[in-house]
Amino acid sequence: MTVTARTADLAGGRPVVPSRGAMRPLGLGEARITGGFWARRQQTNGSATLEHGRMWMDKLGWTGSFVPADRAGAAADRRGREFTDSEVYKLVEAMAWETGRSPQPGRDREIGELAAMFASAQAPDGYLHTAFGRPGQRPRYSDLAWGHELYCTGHLLQAAVARTRTAGADELLEVARRAADHVCATFGNDGPAIVCGHPEIETALAELARVTGEQRYLDQAALFLRRRGHRSLPPHQFGWEYFSDDVPIRHAHTLRGHAVRALYLAAGAVDVAVETGDDELLEAVADQFDRTLARRTYLTGGMGSRHEDEAFGEDFVLPADRAYSETCAGVAAIMLAWRLLLATGRARYADVIERILYNVVATSIGDDGRSFFYANTLHQRTPTGVVPDDQEQLGFGGGPRAPWFEVSCCLGNTARLIASLSAYLAAVAGDELRLFQYADAEVRTTLADGRAIGVSVATSYPDSGGIRLRITETAGGPWSIALRLPDWAAGAASGATAASVIVNGRAQTVGGDRVVVRREFAVGDEIVLQLPMSPRFTFPDPRIDAVRGCVAVERGPVVLCAESTETGPDLDQVRVDPATAPAGEQDGEAVAVAALIDDTAPAAWPYADAPPDGSRTPTTLRLVPYHRWGRRGPATMRIWLPRT
Amino acid sequence: MTVTARTADLAGGRPVVPSRGAMRPLGLGEARITGGFWARRQQTNGSATLEHGRMWMDKLGWTGSFVPADRAGAAADRRGREFTDSEVYKLVEAMAWETGRSPQPGRDREIGELAAMFASAQAPDGYLHTAFGRPGQRPRYSDLAWGHELYCTGHLLQAAVARTRTAGADELLEVARRAADHVCATFGNDGPAIVCGHPEIETALAELARVTGEQRYLDQAALFLRRRGHRSLPPHQFGWEYFSDDVPIRHAHTLRGHAVRALYLAAGAVDVAVETGDDELLEAVADQFDRTLARRTYLTGGMGSRHEDEAFGEDFVLPADRAYSETCAGVAAIMLAWRLLLATGRARYADVIERILYNVVATSIGDDGRSFFYANTLHQRTPTGVVPDDQEQLGFGGGPRAPWFEVSCCLGNTARLIASLSAYLAAVAGDELRLFQYADAEVRTTLADGRAIGVSVATSYPDSGGIRLRITETAGGPWSIALRLPDWAAGAASGATAASVIVNGRAQTVGGDRVVVRREFAVGDEIVLQLPMSPRFTFPDPRIDAVRGCVAVERGPVVLCAESTETGPDLDQVRVDPATAPAGEQDGEAVAVAALIDDTAPAAWPYADAPPDGSRTPTTLRLVPYHRWGRRGPATMRIWLPRT
Repeated sequence: MTVTARTADLAGGRPVVPSRGAMRPLGLGEARITGGFWARRQQTNGSATLEHGRMWMDKLGWTGSFVPADRAGAAADRRGREFTDSEVYKLVEAMAWETGRSPQPGRDREIGELAAMFASAQAPDGYLHTAFGRPGQRPRYSDLAWGHELYCTGHLLQAAVARTRTAGADELLEVARRAADHVCATFGNDGPAIVCGHPEIETALAELARVTGEQRYLDQAALFLRRRGHRSLPPHQFGWEYFSDDVPIRHAHTLRGHAVRALYLAAGAVDVAVETGDDELLEAVADQFDRTLARRTYLTGGMGSRHEDEAFGEDFVLPADRAYSETCAGVAAIMLAWRLLLATGRARYADVIERILYNVVATSIGDDGRSFFYANTLHQRTPTGVVPDDQEQLGFGGGPRAPWFEVSCCLGNTARLIASLSAYLAAVAGDELRLFQYADAEVRTTLADGRAIGVSVATSYPDSGGIRLRITETAGGPWSIALRLPDWAAGAASGATAASVIVNGRAQTVGGDRVVVRREFAVGDEIVLQLPMSPRFTFPDPRIDAVRGCVAVERGPVVLCAESTETGPDLDQVRVDPATAPAGEQDGEAVAVAALIDDTAPAAWPYADAPPDGSRTPTTLRLVPYHRWGRRGPATMRIWLPRT
Repeated sequence: MTVTARTADLAGGRPVVPSRGAMRPLGLGEARITGGFWARRQQTNGSATLEHGRMWMDKLGWTGSFVPADRAGAAADRRGREFTDSEVYKLVEAMAWETGRSPQPGRDREIGELAAMFASAQAPDGYLHTAFGRPGQRPRYSDLAWGHELYCTGHLLQAAVARTRTAGADELLEVARRAADHVCATFGNDGPAIVCGHPEIETALAELARVTGEQRYLDQAALFLRRRGHRSLPPHQFGWEYFSDDVPIRHAHTLRGHAVRALYLAAGAVDVAVETGDDELLEAVADQFDRTLARRTYLTGGMGSRHEDEAFGEDFVLPADRAYSETCAGVAAIMLAWRLLLATGRARYADVIERILYNVVATSIGDDGRSFFYANTLHQRTPTGVVPDDQEQLGFGGGPRAPWFEVSCCLGNTARLIASLSAYLAAVAGDELRLFQYADAEVRTTLADGRAIGVSVATSYPDSGGIRLRITETAGGPWSIALRLPDWAAGAASGATAASVIVNGRAQTVGGDRVVVRREFAVGDEIVLQLPMSPRFTFPDPRIDAVRGCVAVERGPVVLCAESTETGPDLDQVRVDPATAPAGEQDGEAVAVAALIDDTAPAAWPYADAPPDGSRTPTTLRLVPYHRWGRRGPATMRIWLPRT
């Protein structure tokens, strides 16, 4: 299949633009978030986060590394680790989406200046990486496993794609084209059968092909995919699995190894599968993701249980207290889920996106937009520390929200997602508008037959479950609106009321994973979806050893947690009785569960020939949204609560 | 306090020779293991393991790195990581103990040849490390945090101590003296206030002081201890805690950070505390170890729950499936426990040694003595792989028993312990012989008053609980024999019968942590200790989230486990009923527990609003000693069994 150029995206920018699939995604100009939970975060992202990122990258010399290769000191003055170029590119990508969301001349100029810097640092043959290939540096592509050269190029391409889709073709696209041409010339059919240690170039090349219409970029992406899985990377302690280089992608059974690497690769595979009509590959990736969701995903939607190699870990090894659940794996999983949703139309992928948004992405980002959890633990045993505003955290991994990490991918990744978030709200399939995520929003788009339609959404979701849609524009004849019914809304075992839908005052039947309202709409028509928001207990699969005998509490899409307070109990002594339903039905009301305090004292040896027998004092345990934890100072926290 | 030289140790070598303390340890010539569980392993160690280590170290060029610093290619031809010198030294230490246990002219010659190589590689000022300071290498002490220079020197010193105590002073002691003198000259009172990233030099200098009578070695050890804990090492992602450099040793509350580092350091601190009469330091370390045993130790006695930084992890974070429980941390914990036992006389430290010996050390070593677990997991979810005999494992960490690791400390560490193991059986306190570990053995020693005594021990422990002692030598007047009553033998909750002692056919009262038989012994007198060996259920502290709702089964000092078989159940589906006592009372009989198979199928999302409800089929689950697992080919395994 041949891709077609779409450099001017009148719909105001879309992160993913497949040329076929179950649905057509909407652009930032077609769906806008106008208020509520995510609007506040978009605001903070556009103001504080982007500035914060730029400030740190300037301060640490990451932006300053983009100088002409022949400038004196180009190698010696270069700063940061081998992947810091990619952080600058991700920041530019986020800036590009932000200008699509909310145009700003200053930001526009900033992107232009950064693009000019990239251009100045690019070699005549299109190669662009500030840590390799210059006098005094290691040769180009001399360390495919760890050098991150093609990974950085991929993020450059994604930045250019975002820029082109939100502002049209400019110098950044030219830099990206030259870089992509260099990659094709170096790693084409006649090139070496090797791959980059960190996937990313695959999805980037596919999108650049979509933007430019250049078939060879897509072919190169497909070639990289075919080359992976043959153990061409050097042996390493973490195994080829770490790089997803152990098994060809279409023969794998599950996502594995380094979570971000695996998820980026899978996203690229979906792009290529869609563009080349390779349904076998598409279904292989969907199966792997489904299996990952069934066995290797935290309740929060977080992925990756190993700190050591930032990896998924084995099936059902999902420790709460050593959860890694990297923020970037959350962003990457959303990238993959969105692609699968567009390609297959399966609603569960929208459920996953919602879960990750509220419980990983929203958790990671500090209220000020200037601090981040790199990893998102589900159980904090000792109070988190406090990181000074001006202190860079070495490496990556655990610890409290910090202003900056040596490996600082969370900022760029969350920023580009949040800036483009409205593009994930809805899509069009034929004459049906499908709404996936619920937020105050304005949607104005066209159906497949060209009819212009408009819908306005008002809600205080996820605080409450009411979602009110009003038709703001319509055209002759019937069309449909499909509203996602989240998987969690289907459960009734814990006494949750079922979802309901009222169309212009009249109840409509509800069931399955969506409710479809089809009619000849008139402007002013109203649809009210009510989702059941009673807090509910959630029980884990018994294979998950780490949380055996525990329950969690969820409310709508939000996972709740117990956070320690000065006057509250030691969270490791709390036992919850799931026979009594959690209280707190009303909007904004704190959720409370009946609990006991088990005061068994630690012994000199923590293993005994009889179960411990401490006294148990009744108490009431208050729960808060997990994404709110750790915002009032050092605290302990747990999502999974031992049962009485 | 001044140390006194004891270069000629007529007692046949002792790993630790404190100049004061609660007891006097016996040498390899005073206590000999003559048969049974450990005799077989000593045999294999002395033949197969030492040869295997030498073969790999030659093959990989680690021994070959010991060439004169000015030889052409000395830097370029140097092989291995920055700590491989220490592996050669540990092997020599093991060889030295082995010659003390079982003299062999060939081995003696080999030690001499290796010592000559070390001497040839030593700089005129005493510095000796093959990876630093030569033309083309990094300067000496330019990377204190990771260079392992003083760590390697420490192992050189320990090898020389072992050699001197088993064969007398020779060239190896001279090399060690020169190296230690160089350390004192470089890092003495006027030297820089910095420490090595990996403790080890402290305990080594203290022992070298004991061997040579050189006070300045002890002073230097004390100085290194005082200098640690002040964050002199550079910041690192793992924190100063990793290096035990976060808090001065006498102010810390628990062992923390990298387990082997912390345990070696604590061992050195006990040595210095004992020699300098610093009881405050001694009790501080004892408290830290006690707290570590209460909160940071696996049922097996294994320590370290983190793969990422090989660290202890937080209190009660003891996941079975991601247990690290490094073999070397087991050896290091025995080193520390033995020092604390000698200094304080507290029986629990002998309990700990027993637990680690049977459940970490015995587990790590392959039947052929040529393969090792680096880490000792308590739960294997997917069958272990098979490592070819000639394949080096990169790095360290998980995986099956392997013939060799890039970081290959397990071989040297287990080899030096096993070769010297008989020294850990017993000690003398006044006119009392204290027996700590039970094995077929011959003990011939002298009481504090100079009387020669002899005891022969016959047992098939730990297969059975009967231990028969016969007096083989005695002298006028009464003296005592104290037999340790393990902590596990005191438990009666699971129906275990209490221990009993019969002296010359007559029962004696038993209680507490030891039974003391005092009388005017005659040759031929017989004491029979019977320990209760019924298998018993063991329940974890509820703070250990990872094994909530589980039980383990132990028999005597041996932790049992379920290992998968071709016809047996999926171990992750087994539920055990602790109301029915485990069966298998007789020696050698397999232990079996009543269990159910829970056939709940995995769902698409592993969290649900009701507990899963699979059917349950009764079965009988056979258990084997944990140290036997993984010896019949790829298998899954679990120690902690979920309760019905």
